[in-house]
Amino acid sequence: MKIINFKNMEAREVKEAGAVGVTIRWLISANDGAPNFAMRIFEVEPDGCTPYHQHKWEHEAFILEGKGNLVLEDKTVPLNKGDAVYVPGEENHQFKNASTENLVFLCMVPNKMI
Amino acid sequence: MKIINFKNMEAREVKEAGAVGVTIRWLISANDGAPNFAMRIFEVEPDGCTPYHQHKWEHEAFILEGKGNLVLEDKTVPLNKGDAVYVPGEENHQFKNASTENLVFLCMVPNKMI
Repeated sequence: MKIINFKNMEAREVKEAGAVGVTIRWLISANDGAPNFAMRIFEVEPDGCTPYHQHKWEHEAFILEGKGNLVLEDKTVPLNKGDAVYVPGEENHQFKNASTENLVFLCMVPNKMI
Repeated sequence: MKIINFKNMEAREVKEAGAVGVTIRWLISANDGAPNFAMRIFEVEPDGCTPYHQHKWEHEAFILEGKGNLVLEDKTVPLNKGDAVYVPGEENHQFKNASTENLVFLCMVPNKMI
């Protein structure tokens, strides 16, 4: 069992090409014994964004604070507090801040990111 | 891809024995094509609680609103907004509200709950 407030976890800058003003905190992962999937929290500064990219694994995200846009191949959709977001594997996607406050969201991924 | 605000999803009463004043909304699941795990949101009324029980699968939870307690076999630990909670499979657990506001939390589970 593990309980930790996200504010007590280290926030690391996301250095992947295309990331602007983004930090990640790993809250629950295989390192805690979690057998199937991991929980992370991202904070995106105003004018910041995650990389526009795709990968084989899916995302399940939940918007905790702020407003943003989810950029997809064929459209851009708004993100608001309380939104649940499912991005299937192999779909291009980008989370962009669209306000003057941080965009904060949980993002779960399977342990096997292959 | 799916985006939906949790408030637009149906809240169903949890009728499992031992549940008091609890609703569940399924936000992302295998029905959406999610291959590995599911996202649900629970709301527990003041004086409410989830069943004290155990099962083979794990929980990964995140406290969105309110204050509560997580009752385990050997101890009870407080739950506050922003806490990430990992409950391994086969450990007894219960989420109890401990305030006059609703306790609201996300709870992810693997699709294969066996």
